[in-house]
Amino acid sequence: MNSTTPASDVAALMTEMGRAARIASAHMAKASAAKKNKALKVLAALLRSHVDALKPANELDLARARHAGMAAPLVDRLRLDQKTLETCAQGCEQLAAMGDVIGEISGMIQQPSGIRVGQMRVPIGVFGMVFESRPNVTIEAASLAIKSGNACILRGGSEAIESNRALAALVQQALTAADLPPDAVQLVATTDRAAVGALITMPAFVDVVIPRGGKGLIERISSEAKVPVIKHLDGNCHTFVDDSADMAMAVRLADNAKTQKYSPCNATESLLVTVAAAPDFLPAIAAIYAEKGVEMRCCPQALKWVSGAAGAVVTAAVDEDWYAEYLAPIISIKVVADVDAAIAHINTYSSHHTDAIVTSNHVHAQRFLREVDSASVMVNTSTRFADGFEYGLGAEIGISTDKFHARGPVGVLGLTSLKYVVLGQGEIRA
Amino acid sequence: MNSTTPASDVAALMTEMGRAARIASAHMAKASAAKKNKALKVLAALLRSHVDALKPANELDLARARHAGMAAPLVDRLRLDQKTLETCAQGCEQLAAMGDVIGEISGMIQQPSGIRVGQMRVPIGVFGMVFESRPNVTIEAASLAIKSGNACILRGGSEAIESNRALAALVQQALTAADLPPDAVQLVATTDRAAVGALITMPAFVDVVIPRGGKGLIERISSEAKVPVIKHLDGNCHTFVDDSADMAMAVRLADNAKTQKYSPCNATESLLVTVAAAPDFLPAIAAIYAEKGVEMRCCPQALKWVSGAAGAVVTAAVDEDWYAEYLAPIISIKVVADVDAAIAHINTYSSHHTDAIVTSNHVHAQRFLREVDSASVMVNTSTRFADGFEYGLGAEIGISTDKFHARGPVGVLGLTSLKYVVLGQGEIRA
Repeated sequence: MNSTTPASDVAALMTEMGRAARIASAHMAKASAAKKNKALKVLAALLRSHVDALKPANELDLARARHAGMAAPLVDRLRLDQKTLETCAQGCEQLAAMGDVIGEISGMIQQPSGIRVGQMRVPIGVFGMVFESRPNVTIEAASLAIKSGNACILRGGSEAIESNRALAALVQQALTAADLPPDAVQLVATTDRAAVGALITMPAFVDVVIPRGGKGLIERISSEAKVPVIKHLDGNCHTFVDDSADMAMAVRLADNAKTQKYSPCNATESLLVTVAAAPDFLPAIAAIYAEKGVEMRCCPQALKWVSGAAGAVVTAAVDEDWYAEYLAPIISIKVVADVDAAIAHINTYSSHHTDAIVTSNHVHAQRFLREVDSASVMVNTSTRFADGFEYGLGAEIGISTDKFHARGPVGVLGLTSLKYVVLGQGEIRA
Repeated sequence: MNSTTPASDVAALMTEMGRAARIASAHMAKASAAKKNKALKVLAALLRSHVDALKPANELDLARARHAGMAAPLVDRLRLDQKTLETCAQGCEQLAAMGDVIGEISGMIQQPSGIRVGQMRVPIGVFGMVFESRPNVTIEAASLAIKSGNACILRGGSEAIESNRALAALVQQALTAADLPPDAVQLVATTDRAAVGALITMPAFVDVVIPRGGKGLIERISSEAKVPVIKHLDGNCHTFVDDSADMAMAVRLADNAKTQKYSPCNATESLLVTVAAAPDFLPAIAAIYAEKGVEMRCCPQALKWVSGAAGAVVTAAVDEDWYAEYLAPIISIKVVADVDAAIAHINTYSSHHTDAIVTSNHVHAQRFLREVDSASVMVNTSTRFADGFEYGLGAEIGISTDKFHARGPVGVLGLTSLKYVVLGQGEIRA
């Protein structure tokens, strides 16, 4: 199928995939941990043994991308080499090594009537995933679906379609080897855009959709979806240096949070510092930023303290800078009165992704944690740690900037739900 | 304002309410347990001291309802008498007596990098509630909002508008007395229907909408909302009697689950019984149903065993009966081969609300709990127990038949979210 396929055919195809996913999800939900882990281990082995076999399919995508004039760094993201596949295989093995949370029962407490009431963790059912470029997302999503006992329908970008197809075939081979339904992980084979429209509007078959890609993709899917969306919008993250901060630590953290890597969503984009801490802190961090070529967009007070750094690129910040997610060697810097002003600033301008305080003051630390309304709130560490692997989730299907259902890095737990379990000995309602 | 208000005025009003709610929610989120509990206790006292003062407003609603020819049982649901208000007051006091879950930190575990990662329970933010008839829902929603640290915007039905206004004024008085923002609980003063349309399409100001009313209302809101909806659709609940069931218990439970009250969503609407259990069980329960005037709609096999009951109203079930939520003295009855057939039937026809097994077989009980895909799964007790109060939630804002976010009875916990808390000692990402 291609972009000339009649819309009705795409709708029929998606309905068929949805129905198959729903049936497979019932099998996955009751599958034993042993079977699910076997599928993950077989998949890891297949990825390692197919490094060469995957090359022709991947080469088709790479050639098409080059032919279309795609920039070299973007072409690189499409590449499935030995290293990428080994990382995918290790991810599968890590998930296989984790305990199985499906069926876990918690909070079983006896009520006055005599019944005992608790909750059981169960899979959500079927998730849809819409993603761009990197084909290894196919393996990440598939492995999380398997571990969490869900079925999934994956829709990768047309730029990686050949690679995705080849990887999805390995996933289905692994499922079959573990006596699990291959339809538990289905890839949408058509590159027709109408398939996305269908995938996100089938509440009978799809319980949640997870878009992974640019902001445009995520906004479009959020506004058109008829099922819940786990969405990840901006990462405008803050590091706030409090009066009582250990200055060496503050400099180390502000450096790492901004410069360890510029492109991730958890990189710090805005630095806040109290009036009292500014004279010690700002010249020290400015020297580092200047050396690393990080442009500093400053409030008038901050300008005074950073301008002395040799080679510094310093400009006056405008209001948009406080909202900006640069994903580049640029940072906004603002001097604030105190922790109250810092919290107020963050709750106004932050994208509610990840924000950190550097402080030795216990009360300020507790207030920051409680009052900053972001998915991850941190004390004395780098915002760059906001990540499913660093949080011990085993794997991450995305980072949610929503408050509903899952917030922050989403791993296996974010793909589950809790149902009530009630155990009686014949009690009746009076 | 009334139904002739220009749409733009309603939109402006709702935007203003949304903005005020968002500001109030930030104060509520950091409010101490003491303040929130004080507001609840003051509200309880106000409800008791205003039994007479509330009468004129309530009488306006009652008179209008009678004038409009509303049926007497429906008019009764609008009544705010001493008993109704005392129940509301006790509900507020029960919530005040409960521990405060906001700020609770769980799962704080050290990761290999040295950071400790856990989760903190925080309010969702702002919820909207759209409800019909009973004005006491205003107090239930308001008290849950206060305890959970959320702000809310309430839109009751036009039939109870005077009562709702009077109750909302008491709530705002209680908030003020506890030094909390009165805008934390706002009632939409206009009966213009456009207000609902605005309320459910303001993601900037409203984090989740909870409709409470007929299926039509819930379906309409679900399809039009641009924010997540906690929805409660049908309650087609099953009681399944297994081979090994204690027959006296099975009869007692099947009786209670169906006949203790016919109208609630957690009443059993369909009875399943194994071939082996049918000869003992069905004649016994049929005698009770026949005596209580419960019509039995049976599969051919069940027909044989129930028809002997004196005075029984027995008919042959058609396929729609297995899907039906009667909310009336009618029950469908089907004989199934075994626990596998029962689970398959339930997962096909149930509305995923509440389903119970009566059994002495441990393996069957475990399989039923794990494999039946419903919000509440029960062993050896009455489906009528599926209720926030019976589950120990303190209060209930609704019952969710969704899997996303909250499932089953929704109390304070269902109005909260978990954010990540990360504690470091200066760790940086390598």
